[in-house]
Amino acid sequence: MAASDESLRKALIDKQLAVDSQGNVVRALKADKASKLEIDAAIDALNHLKLEKSSIEKELQAAVSGGDGNAVTREAFRQAVVNTLERRLFYIPSFKIYRGVAGLYDYGPPGCAVKANVLSFWRQHFVLEENMLEVDCPCVTPEVVLKASGHVDKFTDLMVKDLKTGTCYRADHLLKDFCNEKLQKDLTISTEKAAEFKLVLATLDDLSSEELGAKIKEYGIVAPDTKNPLSDPYPFNLMFQTSIGPSGTIAGFMRPETAQGIFVNFKDLYYYNGNRLPFAAAQIGQAFRNEISPRQGLLRVREFTLAEIEHFVDPEDKSHPKFSEVSHLEFLMFPREQQMSGQSATKTCLGEAVAMGTVNNETLGYFIGRVYLFLTHLGIDKDRLRFRQHLANEMAHYAADCWDAEIECSYGWIECVGIADRSAYDLRAHTEKSGVALVAAEKFAQPREVEKLVITPIKKEIGLAFKGSQKMVIEALEAMTEEEAMKMKSSLESKGEDEFLVCTLGKTVTIKDGMVKISKEKKKEHQRVFTPSVIEPSFGIGRIIYCLYEHSFYKRPSKDGDEQLNVFSFPPLVAPIKCTVFPLIQKPEYEAVAQRISKLLTAAGVSHIIDMSGNTIGKRYARTDELGVPFAITADSETDVTIRERDSKDQVRIIISQVASIVKDLTEGHKTWADVWSAYPHHTSVNGEDNDL
Amino acid sequence: MAASDESLRKALIDKQLAVDSQGNVVRALKADKASKLEIDAAIDALNHLKLEKSSIEKELQAAVSGGDGNAVTREAFRQAVVNTLERRLFYIPSFKIYRGVAGLYDYGPPGCAVKANVLSFWRQHFVLEENMLEVDCPCVTPEVVLKASGHVDKFTDLMVKDLKTGTCYRADHLLKDFCNEKLQKDLTISTEKAAEFKLVLATLDDLSSEELGAKIKEYGIVAPDTKNPLSDPYPFNLMFQTSIGPSGTIAGFMRPETAQGIFVNFKDLYYYNGNRLPFAAAQIGQAFRNEISPRQGLLRVREFTLAEIEHFVDPEDKSHPKFSEVSHLEFLMFPREQQMSGQSATKTCLGEAVAMGTVNNETLGYFIGRVYLFLTHLGIDKDRLRFRQHLANEMAHYAADCWDAEIECSYGWIECVGIADRSAYDLRAHTEKSGVALVAAEKFAQPREVEKLVITPIKKEIGLAFKGSQKMVIEALEAMTEEEAMKMKSSLESKGEDEFLVCTLGKTVTIKDGMVKISKEKKKEHQRVFTPSVIEPSFGIGRIIYCLYEHSFYKRPSKDGDEQLNVFSFPPLVAPIKCTVFPLIQKPEYEAVAQRISKLLTAAGVSHIIDMSGNTIGKRYARTDELGVPFAITADSETDVTIRERDSKDQVRIIISQVASIVKDLTEGHKTWADVWSAYPHHTSVNGEDNDL
Repeated sequence: MAASDESLRKALIDKQLAVDSQGNVVRALKADKASKLEIDAAIDALNHLKLEKSSIEKELQAAVSGGDGNAVTREAFRQAVVNTLERRLFYIPSFKIYRGVAGLYDYGPPGCAVKANVLSFWRQHFVLEENMLEVDCPCVTPEVVLKASGHVDKFTDLMVKDLKTGTCYRADHLLKDFCNEKLQKDLTISTEKAAEFKLVLATLDDLSSEELGAKIKEYGIVAPDTKNPLSDPYPFNLMFQTSIGPSGTIAGFMRPETAQGIFVNFKDLYYYNGNRLPFAAAQIGQAFRNEISPRQGLLRVREFTLAEIEHFVDPEDKSHPKFSEVSHLEFLMFPREQQMSGQSATKTCLGEAVAMGTVNNETLGYFIGRVYLFLTHLGIDKDRLRFRQHLANEMAHYAADCWDAEIECSYGWIECVGIADRSAYDLRAHTEKSGVALVAAEKFAQPREVEKLVITPIKKEIGLAFKGSQKMVIEALEAMTEEEAMKMKSSLESKGEDEFLVCTLGKTVTIKDGMVKISKEKKKEHQRVFTPSVIEPSFGIGRIIYCLYEHSFYKRPSKDGDEQLNVFSFPPLVAPIKCTVFPLIQKPEYEAVAQRISKLLTAAGVSHIIDMSGNTIGKRYARTDELGVPFAITADSETDVTIRERDSKDQVRIIISQVASIVKDLTEGHKTWADVWSAYPHHTSVNGEDNDL
Repeated sequence: MAASDESLRKALIDKQLAVDSQGNVVRALKADKASKLEIDAAIDALNHLKLEKSSIEKELQAAVSGGDGNAVTREAFRQAVVNTLERRLFYIPSFKIYRGVAGLYDYGPPGCAVKANVLSFWRQHFVLEENMLEVDCPCVTPEVVLKASGHVDKFTDLMVKDLKTGTCYRADHLLKDFCNEKLQKDLTISTEKAAEFKLVLATLDDLSSEELGAKIKEYGIVAPDTKNPLSDPYPFNLMFQTSIGPSGTIAGFMRPETAQGIFVNFKDLYYYNGNRLPFAAAQIGQAFRNEISPRQGLLRVREFTLAEIEHFVDPEDKSHPKFSEVSHLEFLMFPREQQMSGQSATKTCLGEAVAMGTVNNETLGYFIGRVYLFLTHLGIDKDRLRFRQHLANEMAHYAADCWDAEIECSYGWIECVGIADRSAYDLRAHTEKSGVALVAAEKFAQPREVEKLVITPIKKEIGLAFKGSQKMVIEALEAMTEEEAMKMKSSLESKGEDEFLVCTLGKTVTIKDGMVKISKEKKKEHQRVFTPSVIEPSFGIGRIIYCLYEHSFYKRPSKDGDEQLNVFSFPPLVAPIKCTVFPLIQKPEYEAVAQRISKLLTAAGVSHIIDMSGNTIGKRYARTDELGVPFAITADSETDVTIRERDSKDQVRIIISQVASIVKDLTEGHKTWADVWSAYPHHTSVNGEDNDL
């Protein structure tokens, strides 16, 4: 193979990843036996890309240096990040050699290391710090569990089908795209029409199947790929279904969240915790959602890692002993009222937000604060992080309050952590369905005389009214809280009937006077038995990591100014590799020093790579900067070496025996670069062998 | 509730887990609203158990202290381990409140911590130490990938159905149970018959569907639960099937192993490694097998964590640069010949086994040695660990050699790690199916004149002979290695035909003379292109952990001799919690010291629990011994405290400021207990407040 062919081939292999969204180029290479013609076409395409490069880079620079963030720049910025991520195998579209499956991605070596670092810090920051009970439950889940939780009936998206090809689309996506396109590109629409489109966009999540269908008809929306007519919207359950065991009779699903595994174990976990509240259980694991048409790359995928906490508290006492440790924090909060009145998020003191009742209770506030610390510690830019309260229409009817940690990236503001006070809903639903009481008890020091609620369903009447489902209605009535029961009692007395939600039926029934007797009796009680409330912080690990990539990415010119070089400015905590080691030039003495340092780093438990290639030092720095490696050690003498910090490019000289412990301290956060910079001699290049870019 | 009722209730809750296999007792409690009668029945059962206890304990003691290990003792020992594991939530049958699903288990808090420790050590010992490329691929896998790997066609077990109830059984299990029962319990059978049963047991894995069916008929085996007749055996695919995307047209499976995710990424990983061999990729993740009738508790489950390594090497050079680091190791090896001649495993030097060719090559040998170090470091007893070579009939036809790390537990010798040289099979299969060449290249310093293999399939002839599948046959012919091609050439010349395995068809076809031209031509080559061999160590993490539980468990009498107390002697590396802290008695000064030490331990990153309960110190020690906590710190003064080691029960006195760093050194392996014992004053109890049991 001639030299030019060889370098072309290298360039192509290199660019295959770099230009993966560019049609022809990729196709020519995919076949893996590109003909002469196809290679020529690929070169043309590459040259063309090169011409476009300078203009794209200008936009990029604007975006990176805080430009106005218009759609084109954002798209170019994202493309630059994604190209780097794919080329360096932070992630890989899964099953690529078989043309892949939408919404499934592999993490390659650096991505895998970043994920392990994020999860390990999550464990440290939440599980160990708060003594949470970690559990690990299977992904395969029998139907009964997800029936109780409501997922079998309600975990759906509305879908429309291309009536000729059968291709499926999310109905709300089509309507959203249509309205956005009209608003952005159609200059002829009237002010009224524009207002209408905006209203549709604002209320998109509230539209029923019928309303969505009507809008699609009214606007004449057709299948985007074929322009064929569309079916009416119908619900599609997002769970991957399977069958457990050989008989085919036990339906199962791949869990859509990890939380249910914790709820069904509540009784054992409460006992393990010495029958004391509050306590939290936590779980890290895979979750699955069979998305209708995944888009937005790593942000909307069909399989992902969730890290969830279920913090169980007495509903009558949601204070938190450690709230004072986070109450001073100030960050962007976006309460319901501000959203409704069209304002934007403002910097708010967490303590005040809880004191004023904006945040429902201290425990919820405590977790908001801890999530803020977690995300910013990972390297999320605090100015592109906000806590947005759910609007009333977004929140489940049982939820007391709900805040999302949203991170701004090139796709807009993305929900990465949900922090919800789900009240007693989940434990009640499983209590009703399983017949096992998932409750806690507060023991009284002295027996107390209490008015005790007595609920007596009149079985005959209920049997007549709800044939076939009387058992569920009776159990649900018996499981009512005092508040619910007294509300029903007064309804029955005033109106003669009451609407009543039966979770196990998944619907509301009408209870009439005479179907249930509700009274209060005086009784001596030794304890108070109640269903705990659940406060649930739920972390989408893949989304957090993707946003982290965008927030960490920047470009800077190479030393000669010819090129723009990519850098990921990961904090050492997150960096996939903590340190690179290389000899300044290929010289046995220097190579021996590099090997010696590598051994010392392994012994100290510092993950590192050693680069013995003959590339220029500048090229080697550039390669590790692109992986976000924070420190590089260059062996250029037999007594001491230089350590270079990635972002400042500053270098200090350290004697060899101290290198490993200094890098360990730097990566574990015991020392900052500023500490090292002020304590050790600075390095300046000598003999024209420049260690800098 | 009266006091006796209360303690009864406690006992019941406690025993519910302890006697979970005892029929009535559990049923009475499962309903969770046990009537008076049911509670009485439960008490009777419990008393009955108590009577049996002393005899069981004797057997237990015999088993633990190395008794002869007969079935009854082994069963009793296992029951004791499993009771402790379930009661302390090391694991929990999944979805227990819904009566569970066979073969699915949750890890509770201590089990989860043990698992995290084992995985973290695995990463350290394999991935970091050997610079492996870790990846993380989805569990949901499209059919095409598992078709190529052979799982869609061949990942099956033979099943029979109860013809009346439809209940399914594994055919080989029924035949095995029948033969074992006859051999063990039927004293009337002849010597010939006994020999026949033994032969059946020995060849069980080799029997075809027809042979299995014939034996079942011949022996008159019926459904064990109902005595109904059984269907003929038929294959049942063990993969959980699902459907990807909303259209229902893309079949998918939950992966049965993690390895395929690595193979399909070979090209990218090879490039990431600078196009150099050898290198290894690694993956930790969930795998799924829809077992027909799971038994053996944690050992045969439907969802489990695998940790797999795929080490890619040049098939012409399987030496390993670090083999000398493990060649001196001696442990139990059980080569093929010894198994065939009825001998048992013998202590062998690894270096000799490789030198003598018992182990096929150095790389395979290196991994056997590393696996030995890994398992024994975790706490697996080296006398109950052996490496057993696969017999010829156990091994896939393409495999060069295969060794299982088997660990002996109460279920017998259990395969926990498989270490296989799979040659080029997997990469070839995906190359054929995807059309993407998964190959490596060795660049020559100087171009070489080589005899080059040229394979020219004669399309017309092949088309006539293999209508519909000619494409697969042609691709497979073109993908032959030199050795295979030359073998075929000589077969065609001598016999006029050759049997040829086409992986993509999953069968062997007959190639006749005239269907393919195989020749050698002289050519200048710049590189040698070849399919790498794969050496695959594959770890069943759950099985290793279960065996670790059995190997770590023992009982010892309490101080007053009234009770037998459970201990897990986990090494600090594995222990779910490294340290317990408690005040000697409930006294504010001691409690303050305990809190202070807890803070110091948190800062040092040592996982611990603090126990402020008023229980006796003996009871508190017993509780943490049962969790396998290696060190306990008792706060009994304001200047210094005691540290107690779990197994020796020895105690030393340490001044408070040094406690955290000493415990950290102990748990991270920088210091042994012997070091601490020789350096610090020993503690003896004073004032009758005994810190010992």
